[in-house]
Amino acid sequence: MNVSPEKKSFKTYMADESSPSSFARYLDGELWETKDTLREEISQGEVFQRSSYGLTLDQNRDLTVERLKYMLTRPIMRHHLQDQMKEKQPGFITKSMVITELICSADMGTGVKLGVVCGLFGGAVNNLGSPEQKETWYLPVTDLEFTGMFAMTERGHGSNVRGILTEAIYEPSTQEFIIHTTCDDAQKMYIGNAMKGNYAAVFAQLIINRESQGPHCFIVPIRDSHGVLNSGVTVVDMKHKEGLHGVDNGILIFNNVRIPRENLLSKFGCVLGLAVQAMAAMKLGLIIAVRYSHSRRQFGPKDQEEVKIIEHQTQYLRLMPHLSAALALTFTTRFAGRMMDHALCKGEVLQNNSSLQALVAGLKAYSTWENMACLQECRECTGGMGFMMENRISALKCDSDAFVTFEGDNVVMLQVVVKELMTQYSKQLGKSVFGGFIKTWTSSVSDSFRTSFLGLNVDTVGDLRFLLKALSYRERVLLRSLAARLYAKVEKNKQEFFDAWNCCLHHVTCLALAHIHRVTLEQFALAIQECPVEDHTLLSKFCLLHGTSLVYQERAWYLEHNYLTPTTSRQIRTQLLELCSSVKDVALKVVSDFNVPPCCIQAPIAGVPNPRADWAFHSQPEYPIRASKL
Amino acid sequence: MNVSPEKKSFKTYMADESSPSSFARYLDGELWETKDTLREEISQGEVFQRSSYGLTLDQNRDLTVERLKYMLTRPIMRHHLQDQMKEKQPGFITKSMVITELICSADMGTGVKLGVVCGLFGGAVNNLGSPEQKETWYLPVTDLEFTGMFAMTERGHGSNVRGILTEAIYEPSTQEFIIHTTCDDAQKMYIGNAMKGNYAAVFAQLIINRESQGPHCFIVPIRDSHGVLNSGVTVVDMKHKEGLHGVDNGILIFNNVRIPRENLLSKFGCVLGLAVQAMAAMKLGLIIAVRYSHSRRQFGPKDQEEVKIIEHQTQYLRLMPHLSAALALTFTTRFAGRMMDHALCKGEVLQNNSSLQALVAGLKAYSTWENMACLQECRECTGGMGFMMENRISALKCDSDAFVTFEGDNVVMLQVVVKELMTQYSKQLGKSVFGGFIKTWTSSVSDSFRTSFLGLNVDTVGDLRFLLKALSYRERVLLRSLAARLYAKVEKNKQEFFDAWNCCLHHVTCLALAHIHRVTLEQFALAIQECPVEDHTLLSKFCLLHGTSLVYQERAWYLEHNYLTPTTSRQIRTQLLELCSSVKDVALKVVSDFNVPPCCIQAPIAGVPNPRADWAFHSQPEYPIRASKL
Repeated sequence: MNVSPEKKSFKTYMADESSPSSFARYLDGELWETKDTLREEISQGEVFQRSSYGLTLDQNRDLTVERLKYMLTRPIMRHHLQDQMKEKQPGFITKSMVITELICSADMGTGVKLGVVCGLFGGAVNNLGSPEQKETWYLPVTDLEFTGMFAMTERGHGSNVRGILTEAIYEPSTQEFIIHTTCDDAQKMYIGNAMKGNYAAVFAQLIINRESQGPHCFIVPIRDSHGVLNSGVTVVDMKHKEGLHGVDNGILIFNNVRIPRENLLSKFGCVLGLAVQAMAAMKLGLIIAVRYSHSRRQFGPKDQEEVKIIEHQTQYLRLMPHLSAALALTFTTRFAGRMMDHALCKGEVLQNNSSLQALVAGLKAYSTWENMACLQECRECTGGMGFMMENRISALKCDSDAFVTFEGDNVVMLQVVVKELMTQYSKQLGKSVFGGFIKTWTSSVSDSFRTSFLGLNVDTVGDLRFLLKALSYRERVLLRSLAARLYAKVEKNKQEFFDAWNCCLHHVTCLALAHIHRVTLEQFALAIQECPVEDHTLLSKFCLLHGTSLVYQERAWYLEHNYLTPTTSRQIRTQLLELCSSVKDVALKVVSDFNVPPCCIQAPIAGVPNPRADWAFHSQPEYPIRASKL
Repeated sequence: MNVSPEKKSFKTYMADESSPSSFARYLDGELWETKDTLREEISQGEVFQRSSYGLTLDQNRDLTVERLKYMLTRPIMRHHLQDQMKEKQPGFITKSMVITELICSADMGTGVKLGVVCGLFGGAVNNLGSPEQKETWYLPVTDLEFTGMFAMTERGHGSNVRGILTEAIYEPSTQEFIIHTTCDDAQKMYIGNAMKGNYAAVFAQLIINRESQGPHCFIVPIRDSHGVLNSGVTVVDMKHKEGLHGVDNGILIFNNVRIPRENLLSKFGCVLGLAVQAMAAMKLGLIIAVRYSHSRRQFGPKDQEEVKIIEHQTQYLRLMPHLSAALALTFTTRFAGRMMDHALCKGEVLQNNSSLQALVAGLKAYSTWENMACLQECRECTGGMGFMMENRISALKCDSDAFVTFEGDNVVMLQVVVKELMTQYSKQLGKSVFGGFIKTWTSSVSDSFRTSFLGLNVDTVGDLRFLLKALSYRERVLLRSLAARLYAKVEKNKQEFFDAWNCCLHHVTCLALAHIHRVTLEQFALAIQECPVEDHTLLSKFCLLHGTSLVYQERAWYLEHNYLTPTTSRQIRTQLLELCSSVKDVALKVVSDFNVPPCCIQAPIAGVPNPRADWAFHSQPEYPIRASKL
């Protein structure tokens, strides 16, 4: 029981003793070598063998800094940071995502801190700084000299960037900006790395000749290399949070801080990073819960051995849809990363690519909510064991709970998605959204004819094409009806736009999620086409499960729209139960193919010992005899 | 900002400066004086002015012991504990619930520890001990001398009591029992108070003449009054959990421990205690989230002041249904407490009252899940602020997350409910469940005629009677169809009962929740009849909201069964949105009428300062001008 994990290769604890399976490699994607290198580096790092629960805040923060330093000094990371300073690096985003996922698997706090220093601060500097500015502010990061922070959110304003209150008044005589916190509500809050960092990328209203030019981004020195605060800057430690204890969040207050004339701009694809972080947390939770469910026994037929808890219908029904969603997110985040890399290589400014922004915003909301639901099920499905810190799920839940409101509350994210969908829709109609009102209703009607035709003839609910069509149909109908409702309120009834929009906010969030659901299922379906032949059946089954689960969740809507009949709606439920049952055994292979190093798991109930809880239950999962039936 | 809360009366921070409103008093119920005394005691206690986040495990545990000692020495508590030792005390359960709710409002860990010492251990001793045994094992608790623990759960068995492995072998020659941990899976786990307590009520298989007599309960001395462990007993500290850090959970291992012949039995109404604890957590979360939503502003019409976030449709839609559920739980737990008191006064053994057990089991599952969903929404609706520990919601969430699997996993609880429903159903038919198969289908058909008749003529979805009937209908249909399915599987197809049951497990959980949903709405409806006239309108509106929200959640099922048409299903959604909107302002009064002392809130975002985070945002909620419109 007392074997320390670093003494053993992680293969010992995982399903497959040999090299990764074809499916594991496919899940890793093109950058599998990078991932293997990172796995090796993490597994070798002494800082990642310890676990951080029950430490004091200071110990936790110090450990996180140690971990970050360890990672930043790995050759693979140094190389990547130098790439970041160059322009139009092919595959930079994709590689960043891979790094984020692996580091978050090891420790969510380290991943978030890396995101602040390199993604947010680094993104701001590198996206818009001159070569000299990059040299000044970002090059030192690669030598661990300076670390930055990203100061957008204010006490009075979270997601509403336009409303920020911090001012940057330009003084032509000295060619300086004067950064000032104009009131309590202008204080910069939740700033990550606030207690350690040297420079902050600060968002403020640029004021020239007493006129506001809108929000701009400025680099403000916070403390020197000895940690001494610069004059005019006050930093308050925000201390205790639900999770992410290793990340030092604080408040920044500026009292007429003068900085030379160098301004920078806006944010990066960091929101996609959150989707990846949430996915990393989900995968860990699923690895632990699935492995435990295949080892723990409870209840059973009279006078016979108790059955493994994965055999309980409720158990597999609670876990398997999340496993299919984790796969869907793997493929969809990869797709979004490629799109982003493509746009960057073409020299596009990401903020101007609103369709990409909408995709990423939707993915962030979907993945962070899906992650919370998944981890809560994992925690409950592992009983009291899931409540113990050494089994990891609790801390993952607390850490990643931040993501649902982080970098833009999910409800705001969904509005970003819908604004873009509305824009595209009006372009498609060749005129303003509201002009398209009549046309909308006409096509809506023909749509319902078409689908009922399909429903009767071609499709069955067990067919992936049926599910894909159902999701597209729902998105389209929700979009059209939203446009019609807004038209009626704003154009006909002359309601203020904010009020009209607010009356439709529930509709808006449904549409945004319908959109992202459709995208995840499409990307999953495409991934089947590209996967190795031997994994085709397995992946198809999970894809069908993902689609079935998405339609099942919204079956009330489909019934309301006569897209499902009561009979087909019941078929969907039966299908969901059957698919979950049919993948529960092969789930053990899938979580093994996530290929997460055991030092990132360290959950006794997953069969990986934790040196701090050697009394804790751990047994290896028992492989089902007919696991290969898929 | 730096005012310490104990210097001020809690009225200062709450809505109403005068004495509690009629509604507040109605919510308190008959025992309002007891509640006021407890509020006063808690508010006076220095131990409750401090908050426990960020402490070490030992500090947290010590603080919890201090808090428990403080409470146990209050006259009101001493009196109650002495009552516990008498038999058939009228209103004992109801009073215990009131105490539990108030202490949990102050600190969840203290509430749980009190539950272990007095509810579980005390319940076992007092329910079944002789007067001498009570004197020996429980009287000292009232003087804080001995504290007990309750050792049922084992490593290998959580909720399946029949399967426990610890043995108590009776030795006739010495008239002793030999308590023994037969294997690793027999270790007693998660035992609360394990690091401090003196006696344990241990569940073990009673073995006489090598034959098992089934599980019985034994009092086993664990350590003496100096804290020295008794010979043969090993205790392992389980240390770090997601929450409830003040509760010391451990593992007990017995190596042939001899105890004299005195055995005790089974458990008490402790599961109802969990429902109350979860309700206390919900109310706190709602107080904080509703008050913040009425003070924080974000977004708004162009060129106008931003609106309070409670005005956002998504915000009130997320919070208001939980507020109505918290009210429903107030009335339903009170009802269950009265039923229990009634049964106890008649001298009934609670374990033999399976319908009461089923009610309590269902309530436990519903309230603990509803609580988690509520607190997660509260956390998200308060943004980053909700992630900060000083604002309480995070810790409440982590603490009460335990309850969903505590004292019986919720999925197991729901099965208890359904077993009782099936038993009643078969009694009602005058024969075995499966004999009633034909009759079942006949009445099912007549049911569907009757409801469609009602649907067309009498009821509208906005009528409470419609909602009550809808919930009853669903429960009845699910019950009959489950009976029919089991009949087909077991009687016709000769399937093993466990397998048949397992195939229907999703159906079982739906039925159990349908049952408890119906009970909560009925109790809510009854509470309207009893409430003060001036609160009638307010309470009716929340009751309608609760019913609407329950039907809305299951509208897919109603559509599948043609109980709702697509049109009425949409009406339900519209009604939900309108009701949520119409109660959002009066919600501020309702959370104030929960009448929770500010030292139990201490959340800066609720407008109650926290001395450990004086930098934190706090403003008083702004009362809507037309708040009295209900």
